[in-house]
Amino acid sequence: MLHISRSLTKLLGELKKLPGVGDKTALRLAFHLLKSPENLAALAESLLEVRNGVRFCSTCFGITENDPCYLCSKPRDDTTICVVEEPQDILAMERSQAFKGRYHVLHGALSPLNGITPALLKITELLRRLEDGTVREVLIATNFTVEGEATALYLSRLIKPLSIKVTRLAHGIPTGSDLEYVDAATVQRAVEGRSEL
Amino acid sequence: MLHISRSLTKLLGELKKLPGVGDKTALRLAFHLLKSPENLAALAESLLEVRNGVRFCSTCFGITENDPCYLCSKPRDDTTICVVEEPQDILAMERSQAFKGRYHVLHGALSPLNGITPALLKITELLRRLEDGTVREVLIATNFTVEGEATALYLSRLIKPLSIKVTRLAHGIPTGSDLEYVDAATVQRAVEGRSEL
Repeated sequence: MLHISRSLTKLLGELKKLPGVGDKTALRLAFHLLKSPENLAALAESLLEVRNGVRFCSTCFGITENDPCYLCSKPRDDTTICVVEEPQDILAMERSQAFKGRYHVLHGALSPLNGITPALLKITELLRRLEDGTVREVLIATNFTVEGEATALYLSRLIKPLSIKVTRLAHGIPTGSDLEYVDAATVQRAVEGRSEL
Repeated sequence: MLHISRSLTKLLGELKKLPGVGDKTALRLAFHLLKSPENLAALAESLLEVRNGVRFCSTCFGITENDPCYLCSKPRDDTTICVVEEPQDILAMERSQAFKGRYHVLHGALSPLNGITPALLKITELLRRLEDGTVREVLIATNFTVEGEATALYLSRLIKPLSIKVTRLAHGIPTGSDLEYVDAATVQRAVEGRSEL
């Protein structure tokens, strides 16, 4: 490969840094792009546009081109804030159309083993947004992983003393699941959180 | 998504043009790149470098930065030419270390239904390389698909009258295969091509 083209080898290296892209996929992507130079140029251009045009919202730290972002500037329920780990989690929440409040992106979850301490997350910024007394509920929508759960617990201990309600997305059986294939921990949480019909 | 960022939406559109990349993968790739702006810039830069630096070799039509390419300019066996469909097929042949001759890339295979006629492939250019009488064998390594087989047959009819030997990669059972899972057509060709031990 090295002998064929130095710049192609470099492109393969960059493609392999992408999640889920190994040697074979990188080759397939690179040769696909070589076959359509206009797509290659358009991809390069839109990458540069994103680099130059996309920033983090100074309020919610979601991704935006204009600051404050669309979700922070349009009229929504100011009394609730949904806390998520990553900007893309906002999309998942918005797709559900079940939440009408504001968002706050932590940009990660607590993970002491990986050196992710509270100071590295946007927690101070979250607490600042709670200062003026408008927010009455914080819905914690961090992931249901060890790190996400630890972060949820940590935040609830910080926020509850401010007399703000702290809630968590429900644990349970996903829609469309066959009970027999659902893992035991999920079934356990679903039983604990059972509701009356 | 549209509301969040126009340039991000555009990037997602470009990513989705890549083979095997759908909505979810495009999102994952885009947000991964947003998390590491230096990777994003490096990817954009190497795409532009490839666009500007990579061309087709004027001899074999493989991918190269310098014309003629590495494989055409280094000493190899000039008496055999291996004909492949796409530039990346050269890599597969080279990995096998079984072929020491020259290459010729057709840039496709005959497919009348898709409008791929002989004139669209680098066939005239191949015949020109056979004119001076140096080449004594053409190894046809087009894919083992309907189109690849048709192309092999077409080429053999063109080249045989020139008193040049035309060969084809062997059909058979792939290394490491369990016979019970090999398709019937492959087993049939393997029986036809059986060799004495």
